[in-house]
Amino acid sequence: MSLNNIFSYFVPKDKKFFPLFEQAGENLVTMSLLFKERLSKASTPEASEITKEIDRLEGKGDNITHQIHLELGKNFITPFDREDIHSLANSLDDVADMIYGASQKMEVYKLDKPNKAMFELSDLIHEACCHIKTAVIELKNLKNIRKITDSCIRINSVENKADNIFDKAVAELFDFEKDAITLIKYKEILSILEDATDKCEDVANVLESILVKNA
Amino acid sequence: MSLNNIFSYFVPKDKKFFPLFEQAGENLVTMSLLFKERLSKASTPEASEITKEIDRLEGKGDNITHQIHLELGKNFITPFDREDIHSLANSLDDVADMIYGASQKMEVYKLDKPNKAMFELSDLIHEACCHIKTAVIELKNLKNIRKITDSCIRINSVENKADNIFDKAVAELFDFEKDAITLIKYKEILSILEDATDKCEDVANVLESILVKNA
Amino acid sequence: MSLNNIFSYFVPKDKKFFPLFEQAGENLVTMSLLFKERLSKASTPEASEITKEIDRLEGKGDNITHQIHLELGKNFITPFDREDIHSLANSLDDVADMIYGASQKMEVYKLDKPNKAMFELSDLIHEACCHIKTAVIELKNLKNIRKITDSCIRINSVENKADNIFDKAVAELFDFEKDAITLIKYKEILSILEDATDKCEDVANVLESILVKNA
Repeated sequence: MSLNNIFSYFVPKDKKFFPLFEQAGENLVTMSLLFKERLSKASTPEASEITKEIDRLEGKGDNITHQIHLELGKNFITPFDREDIHSLANSLDDVADMIYGASQKMEVYKLDKPNKAMFELSDLIHEACCHIKTAVIELKNLKNIRKITDSCIRINSVENKADNIFDKAVAELFDFEKDAITLIKYKEILSILEDATDKCEDVANVLESILVKNA
Repeated sequence: MSLNNIFSYFVPKDKKFFPLFEQAGENLVTMSLLFKERLSKASTPEASEITKEIDRLEGKGDNITHQIHLELGKNFITPFDREDIHSLANSLDDVADMIYGASQKMEVYKLDKPNKAMFELSDLIHEACCHIKTAVIELKNLKNIRKITDSCIRINSVENKADNIFDKAVAELFDFEKDAITLIKYKEILSILEDATDKCEDVANVLESILVKNA
Repeated sequence: MSLNNIFSYFVPKDKKFFPLFEQAGENLVTMSLLFKERLSKASTPEASEITKEIDRLEGKGDNITHQIHLELGKNFITPFDREDIHSLANSLDDVADMIYGASQKMEVYKLDKPNKAMFELSDLIHEACCHIKTAVIELKNLKNIRKITDSCIRINSVENKADNIFDKAVAELFDFEKDAITLIKYKEILSILEDATDKCEDVANVLESILVKNA
């Protein structure tokens, strides 16, 4: 397997893509942490302030994605397939979009009593984002493919847990919530949180397919 | 960047794929225009007539997609990657499916009072389809990559606007609509219209990745 | 078209991937058959037993997917593109996830009166899974590309039928179901069944793109 050799050849030269992917990973960690904070503030003015900050970071993420696309236009030699760089950048952006979407949705629905499942899901999103960051940092030297694979497995496991929490929380809503409109509101927020973990899994899938292609 | 050279070599020879993509783009413009018309007729008999016409055009779109697949089977040399031709054809088809789906859904739900957000979303879908058509036409000579990139940026911007309109409209439903079943109906229609703009964005992503690959 | 030659060269050597794809296809046929059985048992204890068996088979499917990924890591020569093997494995896994999800959702929602549309959709899912199995078996010799194409066309047709059944069933819910929460429950289950046929269509799309790439 000549992977390490191939990469050790290219990597020292790449000062373009890896720092941008790292920034994108770091940004997701911050966004997911802020979302946990936002959730605990329910529908207070502080919550709205945090939503604005999440909005700002989502814009920062967009800029990073745009930078990656610009670098693709300028550089002939890339550390791995152009299409994969494109997919990875987009999949990271999708996670940011979901975290932003969740916080925006809490804002517009004026949800003032987040439930236990929402806190659990926001913890899982944060956990997945931390694994994404780790994997993306490892991508740069690839000495330790196992570490990337491990992160991917953990992200998949987070997504499975999120699925279960989501299903149970929705079942509880159907058992105990008698007001249909309230039920819909809660289900929508739970749903976008669960979608966020799906998008984290998409990142893991892109990472795995990069490993597969280069293995 | 040898892109223009590569394409100037192939393009004069390609009389197969580009005309089909142009037809698909043109078809989306017509469908989205008809949908605007259909929406303004609410649940009148005229509306049902327009739905039938949209249905017919969706079938026409399917035929175009099928033609593109057939040409792929017959031609060894293609103006760009076979997989990208495949993805572009499918993503254009997805937009047609959504416009058809929205008009079908209005029919079966007997929605008789479309709201302001629905009109705004149908305008945005039409706008995105016009940009898709422009981009797809430009694909053929690629002298002006900027124009395709511009269309893609505009499609992304349309999708962002649609997201905001959708979120606000759903928030308003939760604030003012007290009948849960009516609320669900409106939310479903708004949702498929917003999905249509997501599918337009997918077309833009395919176009961008074609540019990335060939840059 | 040199496809048959290319494949006749590689295929006799491949004892790794095709048997695994066949197992995955076979697994989907069994899961979809069990789901039909589960549906007919509504929310009885027998139904819960079948759900557990579906859960077990979903795990078996995960193992098959994992085996395919492991083989990709170990084998330099693959019967077709590594990325396509990856995509095919994942898309088969997605179908299994949906069937499992549907049975799990029926469990947690305690849905005790499945309606006609649900039975029709479960028949269609089973039909699509049988076509998937056929196509996946044919993949191994590719002497009969037509047979794979035929299966893909049939899967697409199943998905179209499922769309119509879903739309009509939801329309009927809006016409006759006056309890919003019951309506949501039914709509959710119908929706995941329809999603399952979408995932079958995704398998067909991957298969078609494998044919396109190798044509």
